[in-house]
Amino acid sequence: MKAVGVVVEYNPFHNGHLYHAKQSKNQSNADVVIAVMSGHFLQRGEPSLVDKWHRTKMALQNGIDLVIELPYVFSTGHATHFAEGAITLLNAIGCETFTFGSEEGTIEPFFNTYHLIKAHEEEYNSLIKQFVTTGISYPQSLYMAYEQLRQKVSKATIDLSQPNNILGYHYIEAAKRLNLSIEPSTIQRIQAGYHDSINVNSSIASATGIRKAIFEEQLLQRVKKYVPSETYLQLENWNNQYHTFIHWESLWSYLRYAILRNTPEQLTQFADVSEGIEHALIKAAKKSDSFFDFMNNVKSKRYTWTRLQRMLTHIYTGITKEQLHQSSKPSYIRLLGMTTTGQAYLSEKKKQFTLPLISRVASVKDPMLALDIRATDMYALGVELSTKEKIAKDYQTPPIRL
Amino acid sequence: MKAVGVVVEYNPFHNGHLYHAKQSKNQSNADVVIAVMSGHFLQRGEPSLVDKWHRTKMALQNGIDLVIELPYVFSTGHATHFAEGAITLLNAIGCETFTFGSEEGTIEPFFNTYHLIKAHEEEYNSLIKQFVTTGISYPQSLYMAYEQLRQKVSKATIDLSQPNNILGYHYIEAAKRLNLSIEPSTIQRIQAGYHDSINVNSSIASATGIRKAIFEEQLLQRVKKYVPSETYLQLENWNNQYHTFIHWESLWSYLRYAILRNTPEQLTQFADVSEGIEHALIKAAKKSDSFFDFMNNVKSKRYTWTRLQRMLTHIYTGITKEQLHQSSKPSYIRLLGMTTTGQAYLSEKKKQFTLPLISRVASVKDPMLALDIRATDMYALGVELSTKEKIAKDYQTPPIRL
Repeated sequence: MKAVGVVVEYNPFHNGHLYHAKQSKNQSNADVVIAVMSGHFLQRGEPSLVDKWHRTKMALQNGIDLVIELPYVFSTGHATHFAEGAITLLNAIGCETFTFGSEEGTIEPFFNTYHLIKAHEEEYNSLIKQFVTTGISYPQSLYMAYEQLRQKVSKATIDLSQPNNILGYHYIEAAKRLNLSIEPSTIQRIQAGYHDSINVNSSIASATGIRKAIFEEQLLQRVKKYVPSETYLQLENWNNQYHTFIHWESLWSYLRYAILRNTPEQLTQFADVSEGIEHALIKAAKKSDSFFDFMNNVKSKRYTWTRLQRMLTHIYTGITKEQLHQSSKPSYIRLLGMTTTGQAYLSEKKKQFTLPLISRVASVKDPMLALDIRATDMYALGVELSTKEKIAKDYQTPPIRL
Repeated sequence: MKAVGVVVEYNPFHNGHLYHAKQSKNQSNADVVIAVMSGHFLQRGEPSLVDKWHRTKMALQNGIDLVIELPYVFSTGHATHFAEGAITLLNAIGCETFTFGSEEGTIEPFFNTYHLIKAHEEEYNSLIKQFVTTGISYPQSLYMAYEQLRQKVSKATIDLSQPNNILGYHYIEAAKRLNLSIEPSTIQRIQAGYHDSINVNSSIASATGIRKAIFEEQLLQRVKKYVPSETYLQLENWNNQYHTFIHWESLWSYLRYAILRNTPEQLTQFADVSEGIEHALIKAAKKSDSFFDFMNNVKSKRYTWTRLQRMLTHIYTGITKEQLHQSSKPSYIRLLGMTTTGQAYLSEKKKQFTLPLISRVASVKDPMLALDIRATDMYALGVELSTKEKIAKDYQTPPIRL
């Protein structure tokens, strides 16, 4: 059996994801689609709307055959690290190819960009440094340095101001750098931009737009046309049980406590907290009544919203820099769910996997897995706060079977 | 002006305290009574019922002229450390004597006990060790070792199974060991035992009994006869404003989060957390729905309720062993409140104080004071949780004047 891999968050699974899953299978002639999905804390430093098991069900009902978890260490990391973890896992579970959605839509310009940067690495890095020292933000400096390099070649290269192009670039860069046999391919994204609000004239909306509609309009009904019916059902189930979707506001009182419980020096044990931001965090926590209020009090030119949220994720979960960096490569394949096709694939290929497959966490001692379990426990507290009900935890939840 | 000192928690101030304050002044012929009072976290590892400013008001309205704060480092410490901090402060602020309530009631047997233990220190310590190794609890081992020594002398010695005698012993031991000029004296406690429930036939009840009545019967009215009218008014004021008195259940959700946010190894950075109790704390936190439930899940012969509560205090405030031990002697006299008499005393004697007097914390940088401020912030969160109102903080609250 032949497998194609996708890197996902499914927060929540929507019609654009369905399109991508189908196209991935068709383009690659694969028998199974394997998704490596972030757990409860996501790349932009946010908790997921609903838990990973509900999101796994959405995926398995819509064209994904196997869902494996991207460990916390990678799912909350910078793009380079995120990509490294995700592509390593897809390679380890035997995918011949992986596909990613991009604004670009064809793979050749990605390779050209990769070779261009690779060939001028020193120049590129020194350009970035130059821009950063003038006070330009890091992402903006990256972009400007790249635009200068780009003028050196006539070949088509990608536009690195587009968020999905950036992600795709990092996937390819990781695969090449780690010398993995897995092959990249890309699929043109349709309609919705990454940050767009939902659009009534389309059935495609970005996950960001869908979440925004859910939180701002407090009306689940509003997003029905943008998600497969099974997603809608899972969202409804969750909402009936917990009466809230999870976002930073759900975790705010704990986060605030966690910030105030530390000295500025102690806060610097968390990734990215340095250069004085620790003082600003404490000062803002003292006077803010909500997460939104807090973010506006702490935000500055120097720190993007995403960078701040990533720091806060680690402060919230209590996972220190040292713990994050104790191992830099995935050490296991954690199975979150499978269809019968996915199960058949596992039976056939399991012996060739280059990392151990974990179905039940109880018997496994692994420091990276311990962080995933911690992240789940911390996520669960956000739900309990409003419902006093305990949600399913890692130890008690076997992989979903469909 | 002549001053007498008392060591107090006033949680809350009751008729027994009033009796003690009056007797202290009379017996010592002092002009002012100075109380060194614990802040928001107390010796038995509990948060105070109401904040330290409400408790200061109760004291100033009932015979106390100056209230100074016993820093967190001492107020939550073991008896030896607690006594060291308290007596050092009373000495530093110029008290000629201090008085303590005791079951014994006369001072001579305290001195005899002090000399007895001092003269047989090695034997005493080795006896304690012997008992501890047979699995007997530490407090019980202390008591048994002492009872053996006691047989050596015919002079009257104190009964060290009585909680107030124990405290008094530690005060005297601290004063002698530190070679302080302050002189001890004692006052016989009347009626209520330390742990007694309230008794309808008396106007004296222990603070423990009063708190129990407040929490179990949820009827403030019930304790009216055991406290001065000004205490009752302060309790009423607090209750009208915050709709809750503070106890561990108020802080439980944060405490639970704080426990679950750590690995077992990380929990051992807090005082007294060692020898495997860290695993038991995490396990119990996962399954417990309330603080009471938690304590019953974690309690064992090896750990007394008080010892567990002290660990939990430090975990809750986030104050590590290292922070607790960074300085072992008080470095300031923090003024919480004063009557006009107290103010006159300060004017007259301030220059002779052996430690700096702090009235406003904002301008002072002191690591020990920083912990007191942290403790207040953490205490305030327990109040905010139910009221969404911020209580007065250290930076914003000047000393109470009466």
